[in-house]
Amino acid sequence: MIRFNETEYLAIADKTIEEMKLAEEAADTLTEKGFENIFFIGVGGTCAMMTSAKEILKQICHVPVYMEQAAELMATGHSQLTERSLVIVMSKSGDTKEVVEIGNRLKKQGNPIVAFTSSYDCPIAKNSTVTVPVVKADLVEFYYMPLNVFIMRLCLNLGDISREDYEQIYRELPLIPNNLVRIKKEFDFRAQKIAEQFAEEPYLLFVGGGQMWGEVINESMCVLEEALWIKTKAVSSADFFHGTLELVDEKLPVILIKGEGKERVLDDRAEKFLKKTTKRLVVIDPKEYALEGVEDKFRWIYAPMITTTIMIDRMSVWFAEKTGHDMQLRRYYRQFEY
Amino acid sequence: MIRFNETEYLAIADKTIEEMKLAEEAADTLTEKGFENIFFIGVGGTCAMMTSAKEILKQICHVPVYMEQAAELMATGHSQLTERSLVIVMSKSGDTKEVVEIGNRLKKQGNPIVAFTSSYDCPIAKNSTVTVPVVKADLVEFYYMPLNVFIMRLCLNLGDISREDYEQIYRELPLIPNNLVRIKKEFDFRAQKIAEQFAEEPYLLFVGGGQMWGEVINESMCVLEEALWIKTKAVSSADFFHGTLELVDEKLPVILIKGEGKERVLDDRAEKFLKKTTKRLVVIDPKEYALEGVEDKFRWIYAPMITTTIMIDRMSVWFAEKTGHDMQLRRYYRQFEY
Repeated sequence: MIRFNETEYLAIADKTIEEMKLAEEAADTLTEKGFENIFFIGVGGTCAMMTSAKEILKQICHVPVYMEQAAELMATGHSQLTERSLVIVMSKSGDTKEVVEIGNRLKKQGNPIVAFTSSYDCPIAKNSTVTVPVVKADLVEFYYMPLNVFIMRLCLNLGDISREDYEQIYRELPLIPNNLVRIKKEFDFRAQKIAEQFAEEPYLLFVGGGQMWGEVINESMCVLEEALWIKTKAVSSADFFHGTLELVDEKLPVILIKGEGKERVLDDRAEKFLKKTTKRLVVIDPKEYALEGVEDKFRWIYAPMITTTIMIDRMSVWFAEKTGHDMQLRRYYRQFEY
Repeated sequence: MIRFNETEYLAIADKTIEEMKLAEEAADTLTEKGFENIFFIGVGGTCAMMTSAKEILKQICHVPVYMEQAAELMATGHSQLTERSLVIVMSKSGDTKEVVEIGNRLKKQGNPIVAFTSSYDCPIAKNSTVTVPVVKADLVEFYYMPLNVFIMRLCLNLGDISREDYEQIYRELPLIPNNLVRIKKEFDFRAQKIAEQFAEEPYLLFVGGGQMWGEVINESMCVLEEALWIKTKAVSSADFFHGTLELVDEKLPVILIKGEGKERVLDDRAEKFLKKTTKRLVVIDPKEYALEGVEDKFRWIYAPMITTTIMIDRMSVWFAEKTGHDMQLRRYYRQFEY
C-alpha cells in the first residue's frame, strides 16, 4: 500500500497495547478522587476523536456526560462544570492553545483531569492529574484504544458494566490492530476508486451520526477541508431529513458513514433514501469488515476504529495522491496569530 | 417591503404578547411537578429554534440541560433521560413524526412535558402536560417570545435569577416586535444587496456560534438548503479555526453571524481573520440595531430575535426573489415515506 509502513504501524500498535494498563490505572486513580459528572473538552479534531467515547458513555454510564469546545467553554462558562467534574482532554500536539488555557483554569480549581497526549512534558500534560501517553502519529485508532480502556474502566468502577464485559473488551482491543492492517488492504483499492471519482469535486456531502459523528467531522473538516482544501458539508443521518435532503439529485456526491451501534437504523434510513435519489453515493460501512477473534457483542464500540483507519488513513491518502495536494501544507493554521 | 404585511405581523405580535402569561403559567405548573434536569427535544429547525434557550440555561441555570435530536434519542436512548426530566418540545406543524414518537413514549413514562405549538389538538400537544400556543406562521421570533418567558420563569422559580431581572425581561419582551418591524426596514436594502451578491453562488459558508448557532443552522440548513436548494456549510466561530479556515481565499463567500452574548469574543476573532482573508464577507450583527425602550442588560437574550427576523425573514425573501425559487416547493420532504 502507498504511504503505509506496516512494520512501523505494528510497532506503534504494540506500544499502544503495552500502555493500555496506564489508561486503566488513570481511570482507577480518578475514580478514587471522585467526580459527579464528566466533561470531554477539546477543539475541532480532538472533539471529533472523543465523540464516540462520549456517545458510548451517554448510553451506558449513569453519570452525566458533556462535550464542550474549549474556546466556547472559556468564553461562556457552563453551570455544570464544577471542581467535581472529571475532565478528559486529548491533544496530538500537546499544546493546543484553547485546551491549555482551559486546563490552566481547571487545574487551579483542583479538577481531576486526564490528558491523552504524546508527552508527559507538554503544557496539556502538565495541567493534568494523570497523563495517558499516546504515540505521536496521525493514527486516530491508537487514540481510541487507550480512551476506550479508560471509559470502560470508569464504567466498571461506577458499576455500569460487569467485570466480565470489561475483561472481554480489554482482551479484544489488542486484537484490533492486526485486523485493521488487513482491513486497510481490503479497502485500499476502493479508496483509490472513491478518490478518482470524488477528489476533484467542488463539494462533498457527508452523512452519518451518533457514535460515528466524530468520524464524519474528522474526515470532512479536519482532512478534506483543512489538509486538502476540499469543500464539504456534514449532516447527521437524523437531521439530513430536515433540510439537507432537498439538495440531493442524481449527480450529488454523497459519502454516508454508517455506525454499528443503535443509531444504525437512522443510517439505514438515509441509505435507503440516498440509493434512490443519487447515482453518486459511497457507503462506508465498518460492518462489511471482519474483526477476527472478536465477538459481535462489542463491535459497535470498536467500529469507529475501522472507519477511521479506512477513511482518515486510506481514503485521505488517495485523495492526496489524486489531487497532488501536500497534506501538511497550511495557508493559515498555526502560521500566525489570529 | 416585499412579502411583508405589517398589520398582520403586528396582530400576531399582539396575540403573542397576550399569550406570554400562558408560558409563565406553564413554567409554574411544571416547577410544581418537579424535575431534576431539562431536555430540549426536536429535529432540525426546531432544535435550531431552541438552541438559544438551551445556551442561556447552560450559562445561568443550575439544573443540567440537554438538547437531543428526537430520532437519535429514540434510537440510542440517553442515561440522563428519566421520568424526572422536564421535556421541552416545539413544533410548527404539530405533527413532526419523530417528536410525536418520543412524546408518546415519554407521556406513558409520566414526564412533565411542555409543547410550544400552534394548536391544542395536534398530536404533539396531546402528548404534553401543558401546551403553550404559538401563532402558526414562519415567524421564528414569535416562538422565541413565549420560550424566553418560559425559561426565565423556570430560572426565577429555581432561584437562578432575581424577581427584578425576571420582571424586567417580562416587561421588555413586548417591546421587541415594534423594534423588529423597524429593524426589518433598516435591513431590507442590505438583504437585497446580499441576495444579489450571493444567491447564485454554488456554496455559502456560514460561521457563528454559541447562542447564535441556532440562527446559523436555521438559515443555512432550513432556509437555504431546504427551501432554496442552495448548498451551504455551517461551522462554529470557535471550530472554524480548526479546519474550515483553510478553505478561505479572497473569493470565498462567507456569512458571519455574531452574537451579543459571551461567545461574541469568538465571533470577533473570526471576523478579524475573515476581513483579512476574503473580500466576500457579510457580517450579520444584531448589535448594529437599536432596541428602543430596552436596556442593554438582557439584549444578549433578545439578540437572536433580531438575527432571525432579518435573516429568516428579509434575507431569505430576497434570496427567493433573486433566484425565483418557490420557497414552498419540496422535492422530498413530507412528499412520501422514507
